[in-house]
Amino acid sequence: MNRPSTALLTDHYELTMLQAALRGGTAGRRCVFEVFARRLPPGRRYGVVAGTGRLLDALEAFAFTDDELAALDAVVDDATLAVLRDWRFTGSIWGYAEGECYVPGSPLLVVEGTFAEAVLLETLALSVLNHDCAVAAAASRMTAAAGARPCIEMGSRRTHEQAAVAAARAAYVAGFASTSNLEAGRRYPIPTAGTAAHAFTLLHDDEEAAFAAQVASLGAGTTLLVDTYDVEVAVRTAVRVAGPGLGAVRLDSGDLLVQAHQVRRLLDELGATATRILVTSDLDEHAIAALAAAPVDGYGVGTSLVTGSGAPTAGLVYKMAAREGADGRLVGVAKNSADKVGVAGRKWAMRRSGPDGTDVAELVGVGPGRAPAPGERELLVELVRAGEVVGREPLDDARERHAKARAALPDQATQLSRGEPCLPTVYEEHR
Amino acid sequence: MNRPSTALLTDHYELTMLQAALRGGTAGRRCVFEVFARRLPPGRRYGVVAGTGRLLDALEAFAFTDDELAALDAVVDDATLAVLRDWRFTGSIWGYAEGECYVPGSPLLVVEGTFAEAVLLETLALSVLNHDCAVAAAASRMTAAAGARPCIEMGSRRTHEQAAVAAARAAYVAGFASTSNLEAGRRYPIPTAGTAAHAFTLLHDDEEAAFAAQVASLGAGTTLLVDTYDVEVAVRTAVRVAGPGLGAVRLDSGDLLVQAHQVRRLLDELGATATRILVTSDLDEHAIAALAAAPVDGYGVGTSLVTGSGAPTAGLVYKMAAREGADGRLVGVAKNSADKVGVAGRKWAMRRSGPDGTDVAELVGVGPGRAPAPGERELLVELVRAGEVVGREPLDDARERHAKARAALPDQATQLSRGEPCLPTVYEEHR
Repeated sequence: MNRPSTALLTDHYELTMLQAALRGGTAGRRCVFEVFARRLPPGRRYGVVAGTGRLLDALEAFAFTDDELAALDAVVDDATLAVLRDWRFTGSIWGYAEGECYVPGSPLLVVEGTFAEAVLLETLALSVLNHDCAVAAAASRMTAAAGARPCIEMGSRRTHEQAAVAAARAAYVAGFASTSNLEAGRRYPIPTAGTAAHAFTLLHDDEEAAFAAQVASLGAGTTLLVDTYDVEVAVRTAVRVAGPGLGAVRLDSGDLLVQAHQVRRLLDELGATATRILVTSDLDEHAIAALAAAPVDGYGVGTSLVTGSGAPTAGLVYKMAAREGADGRLVGVAKNSADKVGVAGRKWAMRRSGPDGTDVAELVGVGPGRAPAPGERELLVELVRAGEVVGREPLDDARERHAKARAALPDQATQLSRGEPCLPTVYEEHR
Repeated sequence: MNRPSTALLTDHYELTMLQAALRGGTAGRRCVFEVFARRLPPGRRYGVVAGTGRLLDALEAFAFTDDELAALDAVVDDATLAVLRDWRFTGSIWGYAEGECYVPGSPLLVVEGTFAEAVLLETLALSVLNHDCAVAAAASRMTAAAGARPCIEMGSRRTHEQAAVAAARAAYVAGFASTSNLEAGRRYPIPTAGTAAHAFTLLHDDEEAAFAAQVASLGAGTTLLVDTYDVEVAVRTAVRVAGPGLGAVRLDSGDLLVQAHQVRRLLDELGATATRILVTSDLDEHAIAALAAAPVDGYGVGTSLVTGSGAPTAGLVYKMAAREGADGRLVGVAKNSADKVGVAGRKWAMRRSGPDGTDVAELVGVGPGRAPAPGERELLVELVRAGEVVGREPLDDARERHAKARAALPDQATQLSRGEPCLPTVYEEHR
């Protein structure tokens, strides 16, 4: 596959740091960098890992061809350009499996390689994970609130055109049933879906003509948009045109709670008892929850989903945790300034469950780790071994993992009110 | 240039609406779609147009090749696939020039073409504009708050990896001086810049060794990061290593206001009177404004910028304003439901200034428009004429236009407190 290089999706300073380290003789020092969240977005109870599969793809496409080297000509010196020409990540990466949940301090990604290798991945790894985790975390709250009712991802128009494709993917990991984004449907095994826009109704001389054209072409199983003018009139027209076998109607404005009840009653009166009601219109997890008792059959979610429902970035950081010292052994390191103190040393992580299978704690330790005790499971899986991607998996595996991981969290995890992380992060002593 | 097709960066329903319109005989009706904001994000006083150049590029790459058609095989019928194979936008587009300011109701983009042409552009146009305008609006508030001090865009790691490149571009339009994003530096004429990360200091056996390596490789004009351990110690070390010609120091944590004063005094004491102070650490426009009286020489801005500083999407919509009727004449149309009422008919727009050159109103009218009176200027420029892009311009033109447009707004426009749109939108009667 001839993918465009991802090597310039990174920050200027990573290249100049490489240059300085090459000149100073430290570029070959073995290092461990880790990705983690210092805190969750305000009020959130858990985070969701997403983007891992995309990151592995991006890593394989990270190479400096003539084009990239030409662009860096004014950024770094010739010695650095020569190193970049042969640059290849030969290190190893472990991470929380995609779809897994996390809390502050969870070491979501552990990157081991030379400084020259690992420092260049900072921006790309964070871009992918910060975006995709933010969307997945919002999506997970929405699908939890929706229960058995399907959520459809419809946010492409409210975010960058390529971010939209990644957002559809992250939402699917977190339980969304489908997406409106056609590129996401091409690139990933995600079903695509759609209804009709007000423009389609407005294009026609009247609503009946619009509905008739849609049904003639797409069948009675289609979803008709019934709020361009008067909802009651539109529902009557819809059933008259499509018959009682009409697939669904969509409501996109007004008081959805009241309207859903009115429309359900009307559909039932008209004999369209199996016609579903799909609602859209600036829904977020709170609006979805508020409609739980309404006769709604599905939620189309846009803006809130793709913007992380108030938390558009996951706030993950990529920090050096250890590096080789003069004696060749790894030394734990951490920034130690005013308000950003790190935990030095390479981490391991396990999740501990109680006797009923409900999770009770996130265990994070420094050092080589230990075997899991009963009720504990290891969280870091191998993603890249000596430069080779070994952690690729079908997207549905991540989706199933998320459903399982969320179900194992304590009950308060899926409460929508503002709260604390649902699991304490327990740091174990170095062993 | 062999760009990948952008045709699937769109929503499923646009394709099925096309199918239904083809079958119903309405796909060839001439239509006018418009992009506008119903409202600005809460408290904002103006919006900023950005992304126009990117949208024109994306439009030229909008084509259905065999790959796209294969992906749509299960979405639409064969008759629609045949139409898509030959699909080409042959209509015309007008828009507010890139960098221009806007308020609610401003017709930012006016797309005229057949339904088949114009309906397919909805998602792509909105994705580009909603993202780029959101970033530019935040950036404009930041550069206004920073005054003559440069702002550096450093947010790539907090947003999707391709959105990051677009964000750097939008920030530049709105007055940012440079970006850390190397791909943005390759793709656009934007200077790239960078300092060093804490990891670089931690890589070394001590801070002095790190600073010495950086200065040896990058020269004394480099920017040294001085908050990995103790700021005062680091500043003394920095000047000892680099000499009083040290370019700059960066502060990334703690109370930046207090520290900036302390560091300035110390630098001056050490004779490094020309060494600049660059601050970073979750800055937004309010933090920048709060540092106005501090001895700070530049701002590095990340998260807040790329996430639109609380408004990660501009909330622009793409609505049908007029379409051909049975008699071949354009008829104004608009949705007329519960809480989303549109203004029917194709719009024109002008900005009116008072005698001192300060803008006083946004004039929006329906119909063919009229000649501008003294103190009025037309806002819509031609971007695409009969399918050919005619509105491409150098990025610096957009940047200069923004500086000028913002300067002409009433004084309260750049107040950071929550307020109303700085210009009233005055709808003129149809002429």
